[in-house]
Amino acid sequence: MDALGYYNGKWGPLDEMTVPMNDRGCYFGDGVYDAGCAANGVIFGLDEHIDRFFNSAKLLEIKINLTKEELEKTLNEMLSKMDNGEYLVYWQATRGTGRRNHVFPKGPSNLWIMIKPYPMDDIYKKIKLITMEDTRFLHCNIKTLNLLPNVIASQRALEAGCYETVFHRGETVTECAHDNVHIIKNGRFITHPADNLILRGIARSHLLRACVRLNIPVDEREFTLSEMFDADEVLVSSCGSLCLSAYAIDGKEAGGKAPELLKRIQDEVLREFIEATGYAPAWSRI
Amino acid sequence: MDALGYYNGKWGPLDEMTVPMNDRGCYFGDGVYDAGCAANGVIFGLDEHIDRFFNSAKLLEIKINLTKEELEKTLNEMLSKMDNGEYLVYWQATRGTGRRNHVFPKGPSNLWIMIKPYPMDDIYKKIKLITMEDTRFLHCNIKTLNLLPNVIASQRALEAGCYETVFHRGETVTECAHDNVHIIKNGRFITHPADNLILRGIARSHLLRACVRLNIPVDEREFTLSEMFDADEVLVSSCGSLCLSAYAIDGKEAGGKAPELLKRIQDEVLREFIEATGYAPAWSRI
Repeated sequence: MDALGYYNGKWGPLDEMTVPMNDRGCYFGDGVYDAGCAANGVIFGLDEHIDRFFNSAKLLEIKINLTKEELEKTLNEMLSKMDNGEYLVYWQATRGTGRRNHVFPKGPSNLWIMIKPYPMDDIYKKIKLITMEDTRFLHCNIKTLNLLPNVIASQRALEAGCYETVFHRGETVTECAHDNVHIIKNGRFITHPADNLILRGIARSHLLRACVRLNIPVDEREFTLSEMFDADEVLVSSCGSLCLSAYAIDGKEAGGKAPELLKRIQDEVLREFIEATGYAPAWSRI
Repeated sequence: MDALGYYNGKWGPLDEMTVPMNDRGCYFGDGVYDAGCAANGVIFGLDEHIDRFFNSAKLLEIKINLTKEELEKTLNEMLSKMDNGEYLVYWQATRGTGRRNHVFPKGPSNLWIMIKPYPMDDIYKKIKLITMEDTRFLHCNIKTLNLLPNVIASQRALEAGCYETVFHRGETVTECAHDNVHIIKNGRFITHPADNLILRGIARSHLLRACVRLNIPVDEREFTLSEMFDADEVLVSSCGSLCLSAYAIDGKEAGGKAPELLKRIQDEVLREFIEATGYAPAWSRI
């Protein structure tokens, strides 16, 4: 199957799947999601993604109808129906089904899964970024289906011929539309604290742990736009990109001043991925 | 039919309708909506709702595939399939259908309609409110499907035995989870300016115009929580509620100090509704 859709136990080709019009995901974005990259039939960091998914649901009081173990089993079972390529395994839970009414419905939540081919980014490629004021709500720590500002920001990046948009609240850099963002300065790895203004990225956690293993000091602290433009390297991370570095932001040159340190971090992140999945992407250089 | 669902030309009983899993409304909340109350087969203020809907879509660059006249015709056609009661006529447009990818899809947008029985609130009943910090995004002027904070706030109100939740950004009152909020003080009608922090409610516009007709001075300006607690009357308005007044906020006594002025406004709003629809609700007192 090219791409798979799953809804409350029913599954089939993604592009043919339907869901009830009364699912609360359809009119309130009333749900949470998570997603991980799969290669060689293994979903990388799955336990961490499932933990975060349950935490997102808990923060919004959405009851997940199965255990973590059952969800893991279901995701792996759906992935096993696919060929042996690189996939994104995405799943979401919506608060239930019922005629539109803001207050919580009685019924159980709904489980959706979408699996599609997802070629991994070459982490050694260089990217361009743009910046945009962060006008999102104050619950960015929860991985919800309320993603309109992220959609708009992603479109703006595409139109500018760039990979991603870096959000900032005033002078403070927060994260990107679908990645975290980090800087390297004077040998230190600096990233926004995991508060309510950013998503605690799984790839971000892997990056921080890679730095610890490599004895690179990590500062979880706010940093400014000026610091980003002046950084030795500017990195973005997500489960699909692992760790990419920028060479331009808003059309101005950026990063590129600590290539050896950058490569050590990227190699370490990739090494962990290969070790976990038994799969080396075609562009792998380690 | 008890309730009707419509999706891109197909229609049927709402609770049986399905939509593609790949509709961008399902996983990004990537859409805009509007809704109006109908009685006697007439959707009240429909032109204004349709204008706002097209404006919301324009602000998010969602292309609506039909003209305002065609939309009006479709909504009225769907309403004509229902009995002659009180209904909510709700419609939304999502940015299109495609596998999940933040950037805009090529295809056309999707039109959804949902019509359900919706008994109008007795506008002379007294309600209770709670307050909550407004943590929403900075695009509240656009009527989008990103409504999670509104869902949570509505649930909190229900749990507190109250009708609605009043949002405030710090000391400044903005609006409610699904209503605008206004105060009367010393004979003046005061309401938050229609900027990006509130939705420009159609019922709000009708209220303001009613005040003008009644020679009641209107101030569109920010007001504080303290001003609200100290107000002569506290009102909420939406297309379903027209104009309700509060007697308690956060368990403290509120309003009730300008009952005659309040009733003049309510009567005028109701008079306009009855004139437009030819329908007097059972609880009508004019």
